Amino acid sequence: MRTHYCGLVDEALLGQTVTLCGWADVARNLGGLCFIDLRDHEGIVQIVAEPSDAAGNAEVLAAAAHVGYEDCLRVTGVVRKREAVNPKLKTGQVEVVATRIELLNKAEPLPFHAHENPGEDIRLKYRYLDLRRPEMQRMMRTRIKLVQALRRWLDARGFQDIETPILTKATPEGARDFLVPARMHPGEFYALPQSPQLFKQILMMAGFDRYYQIARCFRDEALRADRQLEFTQLDMEFAWVGERDVQDTVEAMIRDVFREVAGVELADPFPRMTYAEAMRRYGSDKPDLRIALELVDIAERVKGCEFKVFADWANAQGGRVVALRAPGGAALSRKQIDDYAAHAAKFGAKGLAWMKVDDPAKGRDGVNSPIAKFLDDATLAAVVQAAGAQAGDAIFFGAADYKTASDFMGALRLKLGKDLGLVEDGWKPLWVTDFPMFEWDAEAGRYVALHHPFTAPAVDDEADLRANAATAVSRGYDMVLNGNEIGGGSIRIHRSSMQSAVFDLLGIGKEEAELKFGFLLEALRYGAPPHGGIAFGIDRIAALMAGTESIRDVIAFPKTTTAQCLMTGAPSPIPDAQLAEVHVQVRPPAPKA
Amino acid sequence: MRTHYCGLVDEALLGQTVTLCGWADVARNLGGLCFIDLRDHEGIVQIVAEPSDAAGNAEVLAAAAHVGYEDCLRVTGVVRKREAVNPKLKTGQVEVVATRIELLNKAEPLPFHAHENPGEDIRLKYRYLDLRRPEMQRMMRTRIKLVQALRRWLDARGFQDIETPILTKATPEGARDFLVPARMHPGEFYALPQSPQLFKQILMMAGFDRYYQIARCFRDEALRADRQLEFTQLDMEFAWVGERDVQDTVEAMIRDVFREVAGVELADPFPRMTYAEAMRRYGSDKPDLRIALELVDIAERVKGCEFKVFADWANAQGGRVVALRAPGGAALSRKQIDDYAAHAAKFGAKGLAWMKVDDPAKGRDGVNSPIAKFLDDATLAAVVQAAGAQAGDAIFFGAADYKTASDFMGALRLKLGKDLGLVEDGWKPLWVTDFPMFEWDAEAGRYVALHHPFTAPAVDDEADLRANAATAVSRGYDMVLNGNEIGGGSIRIHRSSMQSAVFDLLGIGKEEAELKFGFLLEALRYGAPPHGGIAFGIDRIAALMAGTESIRDVIAFPKTTTAQCLMTGAPSPIPDAQLAEVHVQVRPPAPKA
Repeated sequence: MRTHYCGLVDEALLGQTVTLCGWADVARNLGGLCFIDLRDHEGIVQIVAEPSDAAGNAEVLAAAAHVGYEDCLRVTGVVRKREAVNPKLKTGQVEVVATRIELLNKAEPLPFHAHENPGEDIRLKYRYLDLRRPEMQRMMRTRIKLVQALRRWLDARGFQDIETPILTKATPEGARDFLVPARMHPGEFYALPQSPQLFKQILMMAGFDRYYQIARCFRDEALRADRQLEFTQLDMEFAWVGERDVQDTVEAMIRDVFREVAGVELADPFPRMTYAEAMRRYGSDKPDLRIALELVDIAERVKGCEFKVFADWANAQGGRVVALRAPGGAALSRKQIDDYAAHAAKFGAKGLAWMKVDDPAKGRDGVNSPIAKFLDDATLAAVVQAAGAQAGDAIFFGAADYKTASDFMGALRLKLGKDLGLVEDGWKPLWVTDFPMFEWDAEAGRYVALHHPFTAPAVDDEADLRANAATAVSRGYDMVLNGNEIGGGSIRIHRSSMQSAVFDLLGIGKEEAELKFGFLLEALRYGAPPHGGIAFGIDRIAALMAGTESIRDVIAFPKTTTAQCLMTGAPSPIPDAQLAEVHVQVRPPAPKA
Repeated sequence: MRTHYCGLVDEALLGQTVTLCGWADVARNLGGLCFIDLRDHEGIVQIVAEPSDAAGNAEVLAAAAHVGYEDCLRVTGVVRKREAVNPKLKTGQVEVVATRIELLNKAEPLPFHAHENPGEDIRLKYRYLDLRRPEMQRMMRTRIKLVQALRRWLDARGFQDIETPILTKATPEGARDFLVPARMHPGEFYALPQSPQLFKQILMMAGFDRYYQIARCFRDEALRADRQLEFTQLDMEFAWVGERDVQDTVEAMIRDVFREVAGVELADPFPRMTYAEAMRRYGSDKPDLRIALELVDIAERVKGCEFKVFADWANAQGGRVVALRAPGGAALSRKQIDDYAAHAAKFGAKGLAWMKVDDPAKGRDGVNSPIAKFLDDATLAAVVQAAGAQAGDAIFFGAADYKTASDFMGALRLKLGKDLGLVEDGWKPLWVTDFPMFEWDAEAGRYVALHHPFTAPAVDDEADLRANAATAVSRGYDMVLNGNEIGGGSIRIHRSSMQSAVFDLLGIGKEEAELKFGFLLEALRYGAPPHGGIAFGIDRIAALMAGTESIRDVIAFPKTTTAQCLMTGAPSPIPDAQLAEVHVQVRPPAPKA
């Protein structure tokens, strides 16, 4: 239907006749001429309909005069040099003098124009118009290029792209599974996978050596701005490897792909940090290193002070007292400080102590703080000095159990960093390693896995693991970029006896383990190779590359809680006949005799 | 963990020390030496443990002596020339003299050995062992190469790989949808897509121009040998195209990919055939052209005969009487003929007339047939001559309404072709075009769409379509290869008014159309471009390329009705707590006030 793309018409075509298809981006009549900006996915070119020329042009001019926004057109014409060059257009040196204008499909008056952003509800209802916007085209194409570059990189290195099932069995991965009634098996259900974790491990036992998949995964959770019910991950697994094999390979991949797609040069090598160090310095296992601020432990300095909250947590086993400098924070209003306290409270803070430092040299007289009176001069000076506060700064203090204090002070650090303009430009990747193997769930009275139950412990010996479960470190690792966990993985358990020991420590009894994971325990008995892997969040990486905060901008048809059209995949009532059948399917299994 | 792959050790490495990982394929003790065939995904290499050498080797020999089938090993050793060259192995010129043998994971006694095929139930239960078999590795890798080659081809030509939702709304595509209760929207459901049809059309309206996706699709139907509940298609759509643009592009793609992956040179161009011609000559809309046999219409010759079934259908409007020559069929036993009749009956035949031809020159005396007595000499001679029967052949006859006669005689043609060894080697692709737009569903008293309701009719004018609905031809097309429909597509309707007219002809009223397809009818109003596309069945194409009849051989974790392990994704009962919640979710919507 066409000879060229609108956005690619250039001076090499001068004097040639071209046929173009596209949408009328702008149409205007000027001094007896008609100008149409014709737009396709490659860009825009100016079409001119002139009255003066050949006889046929009367028809062309009449057609052009009736063109409206987003009309779908086919235009034939001759490329010529443009008098008024438009430097903003790739095609700005030329224009096409129309000899034929064909209206392929008339557009009704638009709910919004392709260059506007009318708000997300309207955008999602008319997603096809939204996606025509050049900004959306750019972001979506960044995602497409990202996936293409990843595949090309992996294909070239012998990774095997293997599909795993979507209709599968429920596996315990933390979140809730979507369930699918199985019509052919009344009373039974498929589950949609939260990840292909066990399938990819089985593939390593099946001799595929290096696997990847751009895999759709599902979690039946509440929708949030940064969380979709279905999401896409680059899922990878390697046989016969240790953690550095996996990490070095995927680090090179991410570096190459960022260079290729985004023109970004990431550090080589990525910095590495243990979980313990990340929590200590940044109060987070995914620290944003673009913000230079760090938490400073001051427990040793406040153990004997009169401020009870500080002293209690400083002396408690597992307590933490930290200071965080807010550069220029002395200028914060009371309202702003209250807002920070409210923010910290969202992450578990019971309160947020603060101190404005007008002149650190003046001791007590140089500070302004509700807690100053509880600190003796030496303590006060030591705290100000430890925090590294300069004249005009503020210091925030957190005291709680280690995890809670780290969490809310880490969250505060991020917010201060953004509010105070302390987020450096650029890209700060790192590896976080040496995660604890287990966390103690006080409520359930048992350990839970920090990664997942298939992650190998750093120790090889089951007795050793049992004896030191509380402090055991796993072979898990996360890749973090600008404060986002973009990838997470581990070396897996490859011996059946170790897997049984870990199930046992997680409170999964022999019978339950056999029922849920019998196939895995058995598979590990037939020469399963050492293996490990990682999964990357494609939606998040694409959003980072495209420079948007919203992952919805890099998903063609995202789900939202508000828009209810097909394009957002919102659920819908099902006709009664089908509903009746689902009813039959979900009856409880017959009671056991 | 390793320096080289087992299957790639060659003479270039002579004298070098290598470290290999793999499974013990065979281990044997011979004259004080131990030999291990070490296997990885690249192949096998021979490991030797010798007693005579250095002191350390006593340990190596002891380790080697205890190696069992499928033990997972790491072996370090020196590559040397093999005395007894094994021409069956890629690595048969060399062997590795072990200096260290490390048992990474002991294998328990196997349910079957990696070179056996113990039947599908056992294979699927132990899929990880099954997939280690070199034959399965070959077939799976053919599929992987196919998908890789398709992606590379499409990426190089500007097709955009875009993901569409898996959790979506129910759309009417013929088969039944899997339904997913939406926990966050009690009483409502998501549906799993039978294809991304409407999403890809919307993407064309959204300016993506050329789209593809290797898409997972779902149908809640009974499992069959050639049908999985979830399947994979290469889904494509083009904006601003006619059917030849789509066909020429994808024909070149299929040809290139068959050449690259399977070393097969397909015809250029593919033959083309209308639906009417395919039904007339082959009794099928997906004719297997490797079989030269053709149906011959004989209605004109038997209109006046005394065999009532022939005469009635020959004279009936919409009737068909056909003959099919079975070369060498005079030698068929009565039992064999009965079996063919039973086969034809499965496809709708009420009976199957036959005639053995001993000598066509001898007229009535030269044939043997229960129906000969009902045919006069001239008719009998005319029928034998029309069928092209030679001495020693048989002729089968079908008489019924056009569709039924075509169906069962087409099915008989395929079976005869296979049984009589008449299937030529090689690859016979073709395009089938000019499908009817509608089929009349007598039971429902309305038209149904032969492709789907979004397929454009060949006429542009709605009044014309309404006036000639019964004979209207669509802009649909199928790609057929060796009797398999490997691809199907169409030019779509791009005008809202035409889409409404087609819904109307299909008995979808204005209100229902608005409810189910309102978003589509609206989207078509904002300058939707002419567009069309196609979808290819990846599982089937991979199976054809891999030379297997079973698509399960090219699916890592297929579903079956028998095996009940996680690897086959069979459904399972859900714990009561979750079940109770599903119960709440599927309560019928509140009655409308």
